[in-house]
Amino acid sequence: MSGWIAVDWGTSRLRVWRMSDANDVLDAAESDDGISTLGGTGFEAALLALAGDWIEDPAPVVACGMIGSRQGWAETAYRPVPATPLGGPMTRVSGDRLSLAIIPGLSQAAPPDVMRGEETQIAGFLSLDDGFDGVLVLPGTHTKWVHVSAGEIVSFRSFMTGELFALLRTRSTLAPALGEQWSDAAFDEGVAEMISHPERLAAKLFGLRAGHLLEGPGPAAATLSGLLTGSEIAAAKSYWLGRRVVVLGDGQLTEGYTRALGAAGTPVESAPSSDITLAGLAAARGLET
Amino acid sequence: MSGWIAVDWGTSRLRVWRMSDANDVLDAAESDDGISTLGGTGFEAALLALAGDWIEDPAPVVACGMIGSRQGWAETAYRPVPATPLGGPMTRVSGDRLSLAIIPGLSQAAPPDVMRGEETQIAGFLSLDDGFDGVLVLPGTHTKWVHVSAGEIVSFRSFMTGELFALLRTRSTLAPALGEQWSDAAFDEGVAEMISHPERLAAKLFGLRAGHLLEGPGPAAATLSGLLTGSEIAAAKSYWLGRRVVVLGDGQLTEGYTRALGAAGTPVESAPSSDITLAGLAAARGLET
Repeated sequence: MSGWIAVDWGTSRLRVWRMSDANDVLDAAESDDGISTLGGTGFEAALLALAGDWIEDPAPVVACGMIGSRQGWAETAYRPVPATPLGGPMTRVSGDRLSLAIIPGLSQAAPPDVMRGEETQIAGFLSLDDGFDGVLVLPGTHTKWVHVSAGEIVSFRSFMTGELFALLRTRSTLAPALGEQWSDAAFDEGVAEMISHPERLAAKLFGLRAGHLLEGPGPAAATLSGLLTGSEIAAAKSYWLGRRVVVLGDGQLTEGYTRALGAAGTPVESAPSSDITLAGLAAARGLET
Repeated sequence: MSGWIAVDWGTSRLRVWRMSDANDVLDAAESDDGISTLGGTGFEAALLALAGDWIEDPAPVVACGMIGSRQGWAETAYRPVPATPLGGPMTRVSGDRLSLAIIPGLSQAAPPDVMRGEETQIAGFLSLDDGFDGVLVLPGTHTKWVHVSAGEIVSFRSFMTGELFALLRTRSTLAPALGEQWSDAAFDEGVAEMISHPERLAAKLFGLRAGHLLEGPGPAAATLSGLLTGSEIAAAKSYWLGRRVVVLGDGQLTEGYTRALGAAGTPVESAPSSDITLAGLAAARGLET
């Protein structure tokens, strides 16, 4: 076989691409066999279930994401920032039909922080805009704010906003109050409240439940999303203040960050994230060969 | 039968006392048959399982707590504040062997808030100190801050701090980092950080996970407890600033509030909560007869 296999292997999803040597996408597939689903075993079988038909010889594979964590196929050491997004030795695993290289994640000593997978997205973004100087926002369950300058990641910070929202929506006593009803105005109010009075977050949460009991259904989920996003914007001020800010991604989550940053008075650009992981994996492959 | 039955019936616990007409405690029992356990049925059976042997005639029962919620035995209407802690009609339920009166909870329109059960504790506290003017803190899953003046509840605010801590400790990606190791110094640091920089809460949470990954086990649970408690203290400033503050309760949770309020520079008293619910139920019984 010529070409190679690109793999983005996260907590909940496995995505693979069959690539030519010229980095054209020849085929793609994905499954729910994320790291948390697999529970520490069956990595090769999960990968071959998607990519087995593409392979004739032991195939070179480049992978990023939680597959390099302690719960993944093989743990890769973090590279400390400041650092280029890609570099250092990849961790290698040889299976019967595969030769796998895992991209190392990045760490920061103070304040303590880690990333696995986002470094590859950032490399992909920089491969398309190599002079970028500013802040990248990568929305997700654990949103990352990343200060990039002169081709290096200078510092970064992760926020649990997405996970907190999901926990409160599904597991907390607020759950019955958080219906499907959405309102941009309620979201914006939540954001504005936290930007002007970030100390009020703890006081606002139970009010969503009480408001539902006393006044009936309303857009409480949008208010909660606004409060949590606004709280993150307030806490990330040292990142966005006075810097060029690009939000990577599309969909409602990205739209929320864009609206909230706009409310904080900072201009913000957005860039689609769909191709940058693949561009980053290709850049890592280029370092290899 | 002379005397009456006092009942504190909350989300997770049912506590009953056999009382004389002079309000002496003749017997006591408790079980796990809280409102959430019972799921809407079996209230009389659960109560008789504890108090059945005490009853000769249809017995008068006075109850407080979530038993008066929509999910309880009979829903009682909230009484709006400002209001005395007890008053208004009780909701009555007649069983085969019981005649039950449920104490109504309190509501606040703006900001929206509710309580069920705490009004009885507050009545009990005021029955021992009827000239109290200041703020009562009732620590719990949903801690209440209550401004009391001239025998009335003027306003109150509930905080989900306890529930948030439990959710993060058991259900979140922080869970593996939150071991049993405790450190008062770590708690105090978390509190101090939030009092001086309340906007940083969202930025601090993921760092507990990253610190555990990079540096190994530490007192992250104490830090988290300090951050969340400090965040509550910052949000409740309009309550405690310049007022007499009494924390009702004992144990580690109450100790945490006392430490945190001390760190915020406000003097604070504490009072044991064990007897005040019963004192409040007796005060409600006195309004009846």
